[in-house]
Amino acid sequence: MIIGKVLGSVVSTRKNENLVGSKFMIVEPVESMAKENSRIVAVDNIGAGIGEYVLVALGSAARIGCDKETKPIDAAIVGIIDDGESFK
Amino acid sequence: MIIGKVLGSVVSTRKNENLVGSKFMIVEPVESMAKENSRIVAVDNIGAGIGEYVLVALGSAARIGCDKETKPIDAAIVGIIDDGESFK
Amino acid sequence: MIIGKVLGSVVSTRKNENLVGSKFMIVEPVESMAKENSRIVAVDNIGAGIGEYVLVALGSAARIGCDKETKPIDAAIVGIIDDGESFK
Amino acid sequence: MIIGKVLGSVVSTRKNENLVGSKFMIVEPVESMAKENSRIVAVDNIGAGIGEYVLVALGSAARIGCDKETKPIDAAIVGIIDDGESFK
Amino acid sequence: MIIGKVLGSVVSTRKNENLVGSKFMIVEPVESMAKENSRIVAVDNIGAGIGEYVLVALGSAARIGCDKETKPIDAAIVGIIDDGESFK
Repeated sequence: MIIGKVLGSVVSTRKNENLVGSKFMIVEPVESMAKENSRIVAVDNIGAGIGEYVLVALGSAARIGCDKETKPIDAAIVGIIDDGESFK
Repeated sequence: MIIGKVLGSVVSTRKNENLVGSKFMIVEPVESMAKENSRIVAVDNIGAGIGEYVLVALGSAARIGCDKETKPIDAAIVGIIDDGESFK
Repeated sequence: MIIGKVLGSVVSTRKNENLVGSKFMIVEPVESMAKENSRIVAVDNIGAGIGEYVLVALGSAARIGCDKETKPIDAAIVGIIDDGESFK
Repeated sequence: MIIGKVLGSVVSTRKNENLVGSKFMIVEPVESMAKENSRIVAVDNIGAGIGEYVLVALGSAARIGCDKETKPIDAAIVGIIDDGESFK
Repeated sequence: MIIGKVLGSVVSTRKNENLVGSKFMIVEPVESMAKENSRIVAVDNIGAGIGEYVLVALGSAARIGCDKETKPIDAAIVGIIDDGESFK
């Protein structure tokens, strides 16, 4: 998993029907965990707010144990970091 | 997932029989989400047009919930971004 | 998927028994789709020739719908591009 | 798998319920195995200590054979390297 | 898959019980197939020797068809290249 900061949300009205109701957030990995230009779109099912530092699961992990086994998702916010600022 | 711009399509007449009928599009990730030279070929099942900004699912996610579980696909357009220009 | 050019083949006499009969090709991704030094070895089940531009599926996609579900393969040539030169 | 050094732990109070009880560690890959800025968060189920060099499984491998098949995990510490210093 | 040279082995006494008996080798991808600093730890089930050029399967492919479906493995040596020197 990586730690990243939630920058904002993304709206997609025309999308795969299995994605209806999913909340898409733009996450920027912290500097120690990624090269430049590596923001991702992650589905949030924790209720993360803009500016919060979150734990993001990538790949098939994004669908496991999140009730999203049937959704075309490859990144999910699975936790909010308690002391996120210390990782930026 | 990443956001990218649809640049054009790709034609492959001789291909795996499970890919017959699939529409292949060239997608260029937006700058904040990828390093240089990282265009990909994604299967479109939303009806995205050239120039549109789209949400692309990568890896096994490209086959899940898209009725493509039996196709050799590792990238799929799963949504069209409402305000795509703001991400370029 | 990515588009690449077939550069040649690879011979491995001593290998996993599930790979017996597989044809291994060296594929170089086109410049717009990869950084430098990113050639891969892909299994060909289309009959691609050296110099041809092909569509390559990566990861688990390389085993799906190719009758290769039980083989340790992470890259497969799944199509030949009609107008490959235009992507180089 | 890659070899990395355990730098510390991460606390996430608000998280996916399937992650309750998981211990998250920050791991920095050794220089020969990664580019700069590629630290990851891995779940530890071996009991690795800070400063130890560990073997990390990535992707779906992080959930297999670790009794974590139902958890949204994409990186796991699966071994402690006997002579870790020799790889730094 | 990628081609790499076997540099040596790794010993991990304290490890996941599903990895007992696995032989871990350090593999350095050949220059045309990887950026700098991208050595990996791969499980060998072919009997590769130090200095040999091998075919490495990555991701879930490392567990398929290798009788390793239940092991937390993401890289495996699946073949020895006949004319490895030509790829270095």
